[in-house]
Amino acid sequence: MESISVGILGLGTVGSGVVKVIENHQDKLFHQIGCPVEIKKALVKEVNKTRDVEVDLSLLTQNPNDVLLDPEIDIVVEVMGSVEETRGYLVQALEQKKHVVTANKDLMAVHGPELLSIAEKNQCDLFYEASVAGGIPILRGLKDGLASDRITKIMGIVNGTTNFILTKMSKEGRSYDDVLSEAQQLGFAEADPTADVGGLDSARKMAILSTLGFSMNIDLDDVQVEGITEVTEEDLQYAEQFGYTMKLIGNAHRQGTKVEVNVEPTLLVNTHPLSSVDDEYNAVYVYGEAVGETMFYGPGAGSLPTATAVVSDMVGVMRNMRLGVNGNSSVIPEFPKQLKGKEEIYSKHFLRLHVEDEVGVLSSITSTFSKNGASFEKVLQNPLPSEKRAEIVLITHQVSLENFEKILSELNDLTAVHGIKSTYRVEGGKS
Amino acid sequence: MESISVGILGLGTVGSGVVKVIENHQDKLFHQIGCPVEIKKALVKEVNKTRDVEVDLSLLTQNPNDVLLDPEIDIVVEVMGSVEETRGYLVQALEQKKHVVTANKDLMAVHGPELLSIAEKNQCDLFYEASVAGGIPILRGLKDGLASDRITKIMGIVNGTTNFILTKMSKEGRSYDDVLSEAQQLGFAEADPTADVGGLDSARKMAILSTLGFSMNIDLDDVQVEGITEVTEEDLQYAEQFGYTMKLIGNAHRQGTKVEVNVEPTLLVNTHPLSSVDDEYNAVYVYGEAVGETMFYGPGAGSLPTATAVVSDMVGVMRNMRLGVNGNSSVIPEFPKQLKGKEEIYSKHFLRLHVEDEVGVLSSITSTFSKNGASFEKVLQNPLPSEKRAEIVLITHQVSLENFEKILSELNDLTAVHGIKSTYRVEGGKS
Repeated sequence: MESISVGILGLGTVGSGVVKVIENHQDKLFHQIGCPVEIKKALVKEVNKTRDVEVDLSLLTQNPNDVLLDPEIDIVVEVMGSVEETRGYLVQALEQKKHVVTANKDLMAVHGPELLSIAEKNQCDLFYEASVAGGIPILRGLKDGLASDRITKIMGIVNGTTNFILTKMSKEGRSYDDVLSEAQQLGFAEADPTADVGGLDSARKMAILSTLGFSMNIDLDDVQVEGITEVTEEDLQYAEQFGYTMKLIGNAHRQGTKVEVNVEPTLLVNTHPLSSVDDEYNAVYVYGEAVGETMFYGPGAGSLPTATAVVSDMVGVMRNMRLGVNGNSSVIPEFPKQLKGKEEIYSKHFLRLHVEDEVGVLSSITSTFSKNGASFEKVLQNPLPSEKRAEIVLITHQVSLENFEKILSELNDLTAVHGIKSTYRVEGGKS
Repeated sequence: MESISVGILGLGTVGSGVVKVIENHQDKLFHQIGCPVEIKKALVKEVNKTRDVEVDLSLLTQNPNDVLLDPEIDIVVEVMGSVEETRGYLVQALEQKKHVVTANKDLMAVHGPELLSIAEKNQCDLFYEASVAGGIPILRGLKDGLASDRITKIMGIVNGTTNFILTKMSKEGRSYDDVLSEAQQLGFAEADPTADVGGLDSARKMAILSTLGFSMNIDLDDVQVEGITEVTEEDLQYAEQFGYTMKLIGNAHRQGTKVEVNVEPTLLVNTHPLSSVDDEYNAVYVYGEAVGETMFYGPGAGSLPTATAVVSDMVGVMRNMRLGVNGNSSVIPEFPKQLKGKEEIYSKHFLRLHVEDEVGVLSSITSTFSKNGASFEKVLQNPLPSEKRAEIVLITHQVSLENFEKILSELNDLTAVHGIKSTYRVEGGKS
C-alpha cells in the first residue's frame, strides 16, 4: 500500500482531535503501518468557520457523498454524532466496502448489532472503542484481554459530567445546582445536561459494554435508568458517615444465564476501587470468574483522549488491511438475551425517611422490613429540628427488588411515615 | 481446523490454572475460535505427584521433546520459569514453527528481543501478556489500545509481594520483618523473597513495559533498582503526615529522545491514582501525550488470574491461525536506545537525617541544598529523645540526580550531621 486515505464525518471537538493526533503522530503511524495516512475529505456543516485545528479548505465538503462515494477513501471516521441520519451514512459507507471507525455511543447503543452485521457481510471492519469511556481501551480489554474468562460483573463510572458533580458535592459540601452551573462554565456539562444527569448517556455505554462483556445483545431499553438530579447534600453526608462514596454507577451483573443492567446513583463502600475515581475521570470495573477484580481508568471524554481511541482503532483497521483480514473481528453474541425479573435482582439499599417521633414507630418500620425478608446492616435515628419528627436512615442487607418495592409501598401507607426522602442501591464490594 | 493442540511446559501454579481455564471455558473458546482446544502433552518434573488439577497421566511427560517435536502440537505454552534452559526450549519450539505463549518475565526481560525476532523469522506468534502484572491486559493496552499515542511515562506497582508488605506496614504500623513473615505464611511471599523485596522482579517487568511503551530496547541492566528492605515505620509515618503514600514504583520516563527507567520505594502524593492500589494488587499508570492519565488495575499474580492472561494470548494465536496471519504482530523498536545521564534525571526527594541540635545546623544544611540548586517543598525539625540530637525531614523541589548525590555527599561531610537515615524519590502527580 502506498498510503491509506481517510474520510472524516464531522470536524467538531473529537474530529479536530483526530486530525491533530494523525498529524502529530505521523511518524509513529508510519512505523506501525508501513505507509503514510492521509486525510482526504472531511464533511462539515459550514466550510468557512474558525476551527480548533488548521485544515486545508479544499479538504472540506458539505456533501456527504464526497466522502461516502469517493473510491479512494479506505476508512470513514464518524465523529459527527446524532443517530438516524448518521446510521444511513454508515450503512452507505459499509456497502461501499469502506471500513468504519465511530465514536458514536448513541448510534452504537441503538443500531450496533445491525451495523456490525452489515460490516461483516461486506468484509469490513467496524470499530467503536471511542464510544465508551473516551481514551480508556475498555472494549479491547473485554474483547481481547479477557477473551478467555467468563465476565460476571461490569461496573462503570462512564459519565464524566455526573462524576464531576458528585465529587464536588461530596468533597466541598455544595448543592447540585451550584456545582452544575460550575460544570457548565468549565465545559464539563452541556447547556442542556439532561442526557448526562438523567443517566441516559451512561445507559447507552452500559448497553454497549454489557453486550460485549456478556456476549448477549442488550438493548438500550433493557437498561433501568435513574439520574443524579435528586441527590442531596444530606444523602452525601450520611454516605460519608457510613463509610461509603456516592457515584453514578452503571451496573451489569450476570448470574447463571440471566443478566440485569441498570444505571443509578449508588453508595460504594470506600474500599471499592471505583470509589476513588474522582472528578471528570471515568473507570470501568470488570469482575471475571478466573481473573477476579480488574479496573480500567482514564479520561472519559475530551478532544485528544477520545481521538486517541479513534486513531488506535484506525491503526487496527490498517493492520488488518495490510494482512488482508478485515471484517473478521466481530463475534456474534453467544447467548440469547435473558433479563432477570425483579424477584431475581438482589442488592443492598440505603433508605432515608422522615417519621413521627413517637412510641412504636421504629418498631412498625422494622417489622415492615422483616415481614418482607429484609434485615439491616445499619440503622440510625436522629431528631429533626421541626417538632415531633425524626429522620431514620438505614442500610439493608441483600433483598430482592420485588420485596424492596413492596417495603417502600407499605412504608408509604404507614401514617407515622411522613415521607421517603431517598433510596439508593448500595454496593459492598465484590458481588 | 478440526481442533487446536496445545503443549504445556510446566504444570505448577500457573500451569494448573491454564488447564482449569481451558477446561472451564471450553464453550466460550469454541464460540470464539470455532473449534475445540485440546491439551496434548505437558512437560513435568515428576509424573506421579499430587497436583492442583486433575490431568490424565498419559498427557504427562518428562521429555521436553515430546512437546517440542510433536508435529501435531500447534501452540507451546511455557509456564515452567527459569531462563537459560527454557530459552533453548522456546527457540526449538519456534524453529519447529510452533507458536509460543509465555508467562516468563525473567526470560522475556533478558532474551525478549532475540526470541521475538526468531518468532518473526519463523512466521510464528510469541505472546507474553502474563509476564507483566498477571491478569491485567497491560501489554495489549500499550500495543493496541494506545497504539496512536506517544507514551511519555509508565509507572507501575508490578510486584504484589512488596505492595502487600508496604500496605500492611503503612496501615497497621507494623515492622518490615513482621509483615514479611505474615506474607510468607499467606503465600504472598516466597521462602527466599530476595527477587521481590530487592526490586529485581519489578525491574524485569519495567524492562518489558518500557521496551514496548517507548518502542526502544531497554535491557534489564538499564534499570536502576532499589528494594524495600530499608523502609522503616518512621518513614511511613512521615509519609502519611506529609500527605504521601509509600509504594515500590517502577518508573519509566521519556523526555525527547532519552529515557530513564528505575525501580525504587517512592512517596506518591495521595491524589495519585496509584496511591490507593493496596495489598497484593498491581496497577500500571500510563501517561500519553494525547490521552493523558490512564491506569490499568488488577491481580498481579495467582494461578487463575495469570492463567487468564495466558489463555487470552492463546485465543489471539488461534484467531491468527484461523486467518493465516501469525507472525505479524511484533513491531521492531522504532528508536535507538538513549538513556538519560544523572544530570538529566530530575525528581523530588524525601530526606530524613539526624543532626546535632545546636545553633546554625539547619542553616548549614539548607545552604548545602541551595548551593546545589535545590529548594524545599517541606521542612520539619523534631527533637530526638537522645540528648542534643534532632531529626530533620524534608522534601525537595525538582533537582537533578547528579546534584542530589552531591548534596548527600556534602551532608555526610558535615560534622553536625550524624547520619542520613533515608532518602526516597517523591512523585507529586503528573510528570
